[in-house]
Amino acid sequence: MTITTALARHTAEASRIWPAEVQQSALRAVIDTCACMIAGRNDAAARTISATLSRWQSGTAVDLVSLEHTAAPWAAMVNATAAHALDYDDVLETAAAHASAVFVPALLALAQERKASGAQVLDALAISFDVMNALAAAVNYPHYSRGWHTTLTLGAPAAAAGCARLLGLDTAGAARAISTATSFSSGSKLQFGTQMKPTHAGIAAQAGILAASFAEQGLTAAPEIFEGPWSFETLFGAEGMPGFRVAEERLKGPPALAEPGAWIKAYPCCASAHRPIDAMLHLRQSSGTAARDIERVDTYVSTVVQKNLMYEVPRDEMEGRFSLNHCLAAAACRGSADLADFTLESLADPELIAFWPKVFMHLDPEIPANLAPASGEERCRLRLTLTGGRTLEHTVVFPSGHPQAPMSDADLERKFKDCATGVLAPAATDAALDGLLSLPHANDVDAALKALVPS
Amino acid sequence: MTITTALARHTAEASRIWPAEVQQSALRAVIDTCACMIAGRNDAAARTISATLSRWQSGTAVDLVSLEHTAAPWAAMVNATAAHALDYDDVLETAAAHASAVFVPALLALAQERKASGAQVLDALAISFDVMNALAAAVNYPHYSRGWHTTLTLGAPAAAAGCARLLGLDTAGAARAISTATSFSSGSKLQFGTQMKPTHAGIAAQAGILAASFAEQGLTAAPEIFEGPWSFETLFGAEGMPGFRVAEERLKGPPALAEPGAWIKAYPCCASAHRPIDAMLHLRQSSGTAARDIERVDTYVSTVVQKNLMYEVPRDEMEGRFSLNHCLAAAACRGSADLADFTLESLADPELIAFWPKVFMHLDPEIPANLAPASGEERCRLRLTLTGGRTLEHTVVFPSGHPQAPMSDADLERKFKDCATGVLAPAATDAALDGLLSLPHANDVDAALKALVPS
Repeated sequence: MTITTALARHTAEASRIWPAEVQQSALRAVIDTCACMIAGRNDAAARTISATLSRWQSGTAVDLVSLEHTAAPWAAMVNATAAHALDYDDVLETAAAHASAVFVPALLALAQERKASGAQVLDALAISFDVMNALAAAVNYPHYSRGWHTTLTLGAPAAAAGCARLLGLDTAGAARAISTATSFSSGSKLQFGTQMKPTHAGIAAQAGILAASFAEQGLTAAPEIFEGPWSFETLFGAEGMPGFRVAEERLKGPPALAEPGAWIKAYPCCASAHRPIDAMLHLRQSSGTAARDIERVDTYVSTVVQKNLMYEVPRDEMEGRFSLNHCLAAAACRGSADLADFTLESLADPELIAFWPKVFMHLDPEIPANLAPASGEERCRLRLTLTGGRTLEHTVVFPSGHPQAPMSDADLERKFKDCATGVLAPAATDAALDGLLSLPHANDVDAALKALVPS
Repeated sequence: MTITTALARHTAEASRIWPAEVQQSALRAVIDTCACMIAGRNDAAARTISATLSRWQSGTAVDLVSLEHTAAPWAAMVNATAAHALDYDDVLETAAAHASAVFVPALLALAQERKASGAQVLDALAISFDVMNALAAAVNYPHYSRGWHTTLTLGAPAAAAGCARLLGLDTAGAARAISTATSFSSGSKLQFGTQMKPTHAGIAAQAGILAASFAEQGLTAAPEIFEGPWSFETLFGAEGMPGFRVAEERLKGPPALAEPGAWIKAYPCCASAHRPIDAMLHLRQSSGTAARDIERVDTYVSTVVQKNLMYEVPRDEMEGRFSLNHCLAAAACRGSADLADFTLESLADPELIAFWPKVFMHLDPEIPANLAPASGEERCRLRLTLTGGRTLEHTVVFPSGHPQAPMSDADLERKFKDCATGVLAPAATDAALDGLLSLPHANDVDAALKALVPS
């Protein structure tokens, strides 16, 4: 069987009865993504996309930025951009991609339009994770290292698979949807630190809805798109990638939402900064060290981390999220890396600015140059040199929120409420959370979506 | 200067006074593309895209398939798909791409929305050609040979440049538009022969409007997207490509609409089949040979042609357009390769089917493996073996409609009328053509567009 057929068959025919762990993970992913969408409402990228698309609004899905009803592809594009705008949304580590920020807005918008149930959304979400994880197994990390932004390259076909599942397409239809969506796979990591990065999640979410909707109407597309000359493999591949036979094997394994699972982010910044932040917070707390006592911070990281964190002197919020200097300044000086630490105000904080030059990043020669995805080989060693010459050192392998160090339900609830601060009143926040928690039993998702909108 | 800046500066600052030859070429390109759009209205791909998007319609631009007013990005997507559906629309040979099918629908839809004049559309069209041609000079043909469908990969940023010009963006804004549009650059040539091929033109047209509109609203994007690690060059390049310094040089040369100029297609099928068709028509006419006297057709072509014409036994209209066997059967048996020769009915014609197995395709070892774009190195040698063993041979370098063998104004008018047959009444066809001819002096393009809609 070719991988296109295998993915399409899985999309159309996988059992709708998922293990409890997967159902729970899917629900947590929806809650986390909605939290990020709410918090992202005021982000400049999300507002720009919304303001542009609002000119063309017409439809039944909710744009959570403008709060208007609009076409499902537009709502998905806006809401996914908002969900990813603060870089606070979950990660599928095998894909080195943001996952739910693409899938959840696409599925919720399509569900609103087609009156699908909450259970159908959760089921389709599990499919999207499976497809992204299988594709990632074939191409990563060589594909990601070459510069492709996997949130879009793998996000588009995976979102299309989820949308195809939601629409009930058969194997042939799902194959057309997935093939069609690869024509939206694009996006360079050079966009990191610009508003195009979150917009890539928006493009992928729109692609998912368009591709599945076109496929539903019968649009034909290449039946085998992943393997051989001119294929995805040829165009998007890179030396050292495992290849698509691995993807087919991976599809037979446990659901991706169970293994490796989604990494729910504890900090609203690039995932590459999370291990360093955790290491800093750990050393600060365990030793009682104050920021003023730190003379120098040496961080030993992988090539991937080194390339992602490209802004030594960040000029805006987006660059701040891709600045190791700023992330560690916040962790050292404030003991946090929260939403409030990535505002323009925080970037102008003299205490943090004074700390930036103390941070040094080095390549750790012990980390393999070609990291195996989610293998536990990724890590960060951080060494503080204190006034007087004393040093402190700590290594983090699995950061807070990683599937191997999962966020508790209480912490997820706290994150949700933190994200809703300033957008929803406290009582409305509780109602919004209750609405999302009851999603598995909701006949349609409208009410849950509307509870996310401030009255 | 980097190429992103050079392209953006050209987009924002190039003189609005074009040589008469360029103005004339731009107008011919609009007329030709509108002809293709009208003829493409009934194509299955165009109807599917239109039916899907009509669910979300809202706006002021005309969808020429549904004939409804809709959002400019949707109208652009539908109309570009229709324009390219029959593979009858023009080609920029340096790019190995369809050009006006992407640019004209995007610019007309945006012009309708923003009340831009006909002259502004023609000016912006010249810019889109320049940008596509400069990018093509940098990457082709190695980029195309790898499997990228340049109509989308180069079409999206070039359409964005034209839309940015139409919106009057400054250099920084045009740079953001072009950078943003590269995140839509995708699409494999494996989609040739499927409905996704014309849809690629639709995606590129939509991308042009979205990217320029986002840029107008201020969305930030990587300021240098074409050169260096993680760039367009790294992601979309291929061994042997000239590189982006060549693109910058090319921008300083004559306008692309003057040199190399647009290739207005004489036949509604893959450009790779045009030289063989011309050779067959020439031999048939000059020798008076009837199809029944032909025992065997040997065609000697380039690698590019060999790979593009992949259907020996075409099953539908789209495959027929990528079938050398079918194209030469029509030329031999009917003396034509017209719209009527690529219907399901024609594909079921026993005379044509009987001719298919007589056609053989060979690689011509004298054509360079890495063809230089639009260098005149591309050619087709065709040999007929007649009953009794007599052979006839002819070689075509520049096919009918090619800038080196241009279509006359009278032939273009004939093509327009042929395309409108069955869609517009004869009087309405004349009026539509008059409307388009007066575009250089039209204050807004609405009237010209509405004249394309059957009453």
